[in-house]
This record gives sequence, C-alpha cells and structure tokens, in this order.
Amino acid sequence: MSEAAEHVPAAGSTSVRRSRDVPLLVERARAGDPRAVARLITLVENGDALLPAIAAALAPYAGQAQVVGLTGSPGVGKSTTTNELVRALRAQGHRVGVLAVDPSSPFTGGAILGDRVRMQDHATDPGVYIRSMSSRGHLGGLAAATPQAVRVLEGAGCDVVLVETVGVGQAEVEVASLADTTLVLLAPGMGDAIQAVKAGILEIADVFVVNKADRDGADATVRDIQGMIALGERGPGQWRPQVVRSVAARGEGIDDIAAAIDKHRGWLVEHGELHRRQEARAAAEIEAIALGVLRARIGSLRDGTELAALATKVAEGALDPYTAADDLLVQLAR
Amino acid sequence: MSEAAEHVPAAGSTSVRRSRDVPLLVERARAGDPRAVARLITLVENGDALLPAIAAALAPYAGQAQVVGLTGSPGVGKSTTTNELVRALRAQGHRVGVLAVDPSSPFTGGAILGDRVRMQDHATDPGVYIRSMSSRGHLGGLAAATPQAVRVLEGAGCDVVLVETVGVGQAEVEVASLADTTLVLLAPGMGDAIQAVKAGILEIADVFVVNKADRDGADATVRDIQGMIALGERGPGQWRPQVVRSVAARGEGIDDIAAAIDKHRGWLVEHGELHRRQEARAAAEIEAIALGVLRARIGSLRDGTELAALATKVAEGALDPYTAADDLLVQLAR
Repeated sequence: MSEAAEHVPAAGSTSVRRSRDVPLLVERARAGDPRAVARLITLVENGDALLPAIAAALAPYAGQAQVVGLTGSPGVGKSTTTNELVRALRAQGHRVGVLAVDPSSPFTGGAILGDRVRMQDHATDPGVYIRSMSSRGHLGGLAAATPQAVRVLEGAGCDVVLVETVGVGQAEVEVASLADTTLVLLAPGMGDAIQAVKAGILEIADVFVVNKADRDGADATVRDIQGMIALGERGPGQWRPQVVRSVAARGEGIDDIAAAIDKHRGWLVEHGELHRRQEARAAAEIEAIALGVLRARIGSLRDGTELAALATKVAEGALDPYTAADDLLVQLAR
Repeated sequence: MSEAAEHVPAAGSTSVRRSRDVPLLVERARAGDPRAVARLITLVENGDALLPAIAAALAPYAGQAQVVGLTGSPGVGKSTTTNELVRALRAQGHRVGVLAVDPSSPFTGGAILGDRVRMQDHATDPGVYIRSMSSRGHLGGLAAATPQAVRVLEGAGCDVVLVETVGVGQAEVEVASLADTTLVLLAPGMGDAIQAVKAGILEIADVFVVNKADRDGADATVRDIQGMIALGERGPGQWRPQVVRSVAARGEGIDDIAAAIDKHRGWLVEHGELHRRQEARAAAEIEAIALGVLRARIGSLRDGTELAALATKVAEGALDPYTAADDLLVQLAR
C-alpha cells in the first residue's frame, strides 16, 4: 500500500474525531483495510489526542510481530536492502510492515523527503504496508511514536515489521531498544568500520550486513567487523553478531540476511531473551511517553515569558543555567 | 594540552570535593592552568554534584567565546579539518578550545575511542585545549554537558571553541543549537548531497565544507549543495550558506573556511543575530537541565519495581503504555 492511499476519498469513514470511534477503526485495520491502517499511523505520528484510546484498543495485540531494525549511515543502501528483504519475506508468506523513519527536520518540523521511489515495487501488494514516519508532533518524539506505529502494524496482522532509520547515533540506539533483531548496514569505502564502533554500533548490532559487497574493500570491511566482534566478545551464552554480505541492488545475499534474522530470532526464543527484550521495550516506551508529557509541560512554559526571562539572564551572565532550571521546575510544579 | 595532563600528579590540588573549593579551581582555570581546566570539564562531563556550583562560578564569563560547530558523516575528515583549523586560528593569535563529542555508547556508558591521534599536533601548545567528551553520567545528556564544557573553556580564556560531533541526525541539531556558526562537512562519493537534506542538515548549516575536494565528484557535490541552497533560499535578510572546498589532509582551503566563519560572525553581529542565538542557546540549556532532572526522577522509579511491573503488563498486552505512563507520573508526583 502506498502512503497516498489514505488520501483516497473514503466516504468519510476514516475520519475519526472521538475516542468512541477508535475501536471501529482498529477493527477495520485488523480486517486488513489499508486506509484504516494509514489513518491510525497518521494519528499516532501526529500525537493526536486520540492516542491513549488507540493504544488501549491495540494493547491486546502486543508482541505479535517480529520487529527488525535496519540502520546504517546514509548511502549504504538501506532502502534497497529493505525493499529486497520485503520481497523475500513476502515469498515466505509473511505479512510485512515497513516503517521508514526520517529524522524530523528541526526547523520546518517535517521530513523533507517522504517519498520512497524504490518501495513502489510493493505499492500494489496488499500483504505489505509501507510508511514513512517523522516524529513531528509526537510528544515523546520518535522514541514514542515508532513503537505505537509498530503496534498499529501488529494489530493489522503483520508478522514482521521492518523499522528503517537514517543516520548514525541516537537513532540506532532507539532502533535497538525497539527491535527484536537489529541489522547494521555498512558499505566498503564509507569510512572504515572503526567509525561504526565509535558510534557505539557494535553493541547494538545483532547482524552486520556488508552491502555493496562487490566493491573494492568489501573483504577488508568484513575482516574489520569480525575483528571487532572478536574483541567485543560478549561471553558464553551471549549472541555473537553475524556478518552477512549482500549486493542488494542485484538481489544478492538477501536470503542470507533473512536466514541470519531467523537464526537470531531462534536464539532469542531459546534463551528467553525475546520476552526480556519485549519487557525492556515496554519500559522504554512508558518512560518515553512519561518524559514526553513532562517535556510538553516545560514547553508550555517556553511559550510563556518565564523561560525567555531566565534565558536572557543566563545569556547576560547574571544567572547560571542550573539555578535557572531550578526556577523553571518550581514554576512547573505550581 | 592533552587529555592525559589531568592525570599528572598535581599535589592533590585539583581534587575538589566541596562547593567551596570550586571558586579556587575556576580561578586557576582562568589563570591558564590546564589541569584545572581538565578537572572542571571532567566534573561537568560526569554530571558531578558540584555542577551547580561550577555553573555559578562560570556564569559571569558567558558568551565570551565564538562557538563553532563542526559536523558531518563519519569519514568526511572532521578531525583532520578541526586540526588544521586549530592551526590557522592559532596563527591568528586566538586561544582555541576543541570539544570532540563522541556519542556515548549506550550499553557500556562510555565513548569507545577517546584518543585522537591527529590532535597530538597541538599537544604541547599552551594556547590550545583539546578534549574528547562523552555524555555518560550527565543528567541532561550531551545537550546539557557540552554547553557547560563550552563555559569552562570560555572561562579559561578561549576566544574560539570548536565543537566537533560524530554522526548525522540529532547530534547536528544539538550542535546547531549550541554554535554561533555551524560547519557541515561533506565529501565527494559519501552518498549524495540529497542525503544531507534528508537529515535536515541544510537548515542548520551556515557553512558547507566540501572536503577531499581533490576527489572525483567534488564539482558535482558543490553543484548539488548550491542547488539545494538556491531551493531553500531563506529570503532577504537571511544568511545564505557559504560553500567552501578543502583538502584538509594537505592543509588546502583552511584559510577559506576560517574566512567563511569570520564572514558569518560579522553577519551575526551586524543583524543582532548573535545575541538572539545566545539567548536561544541559554533557553535550550535551561530546558535540557530541567528535563534531565525530571528524567533522573523517572530513572529512580526504573530502579525500583514500579516501572518493571508496568512494563510487564504492557508487554503482556494487559495494559496500554499511555495508561502505564500516567500511572508512572502519578507515582512521580508523590
């Protein structure tokens, strides 16, 4: 399904304004109506006031999908790999959801490029939901919006949800806290693998994918990663990250990626780790929502004159920021 | 000064345990004692209980340094460029501080690679302070720790503070909110410039540096950026981002980068924008500290059984995360 589908006139039936309309919308999503799925994700993404009602209606379906995170630096071929992985998973008979998370542009408040040309391959496949996400509007940011979108896709009957993130750094950490299995994509000649370690990626990767493996330097990249894995050995009883080569643009190595995901999934179940990850994820989600509420309360002070007055004093050197923060918190508690 | 300096035995004189010792330490930092500067940054980085006292002692020196952010994807040559820029600024007679921000590794709680070999060039120059930062320990994370470290370097008499960040995404936004002038480094063949726009970089860049400009594709990269700048034209009275070419590894184009920074600085002063940026920065800093305090309060619940019990229910589908977050906030307010 393409993102555009939700804009198709729908006899007003996806227009949901009241909490009591939510259960019907969720029921339609469960029945496989793509417009209902799209509408729910939009509500989730925009941090709609209906979110608590949506979350409540979706709660029973928690943990039903396998959540796979895909991350890596710009240019390593994440979209192409995701696209091919969707094809492979479809061939196995899975229903697949894809959330492509674009960092919100901080000043305009929106993802600049929402369109994902390559994904058009699956635009007419009713067993695939594809969605670009931005975190604008959502109180808890990406950390809260994405898990809710995953819940929508779980509710809609997806067996596998792929969450693709752009960038290196905080986003990866959030993917790791969200996913059952985290894939980190690298490509030869994109800066050496040491850079990946620098960003803390080694510790979140369950599977390393060296994409564009037909390029010069692929062997060196694989060796570097294996060296780092050996150095960072997590001990007996711990998962040892897999390294897989692919040339996603030619569809090569995709089955190996799918096999590595399956293997990790098996390991998670066998070691009781899946359950632990799901609980940790729920805890992170609750915290993100709670922090989002607190942040909104602070934000409401920002719109007023209190924070501006404190900031002027700090910028002038008349007040230190810790004392100013204390003042702000006192005002918050009033 | 190298980071190691603070580990040199110092007759116990940088051991600060009480708030009343802080003013003396700040006085020594102002007099140019590198051990005192290093000690203050360590305290700031670790989120020491003395932070409020340190912030209070440093408050009068706010806004005295020009803060320049340097960011870009791994492998574009940020460290090399920073190193050459330090050399150029020193030649102009500036005292220079460098904060190299490594994202905290989420699971071990530390920057994995703290050592910065190239920076050894300046290790014996008393007019340069160089420091790798990680955000571990600090309540407000990077967003709060880095501004405090900038304040330490301002207090120590630096005219220019360079803040270098690794990664693409949230870190850039934080740099932009911290810096007077933000440089975004790109290199030919590192994924096309569109990727930069995707991450919202266009909107935070005051100066684009196309490094490794002797490589194939440099002209195309420059053209792409100029095209994007034209598209994103911010209107009359707004700064038009500069594009500069460099080959930092050979020291080429560094004077052009320095000139672009100066030009932007002049524009900021002329348009009253410098003052506005300093106030916005102070506001962001106050908010980050306040949020950090709130996050710590939530964290204290995480150590207890409350959050774990809620997370179990959410993972089982017996409770939705919004209701759980509400419960958590009620417990927080008690």
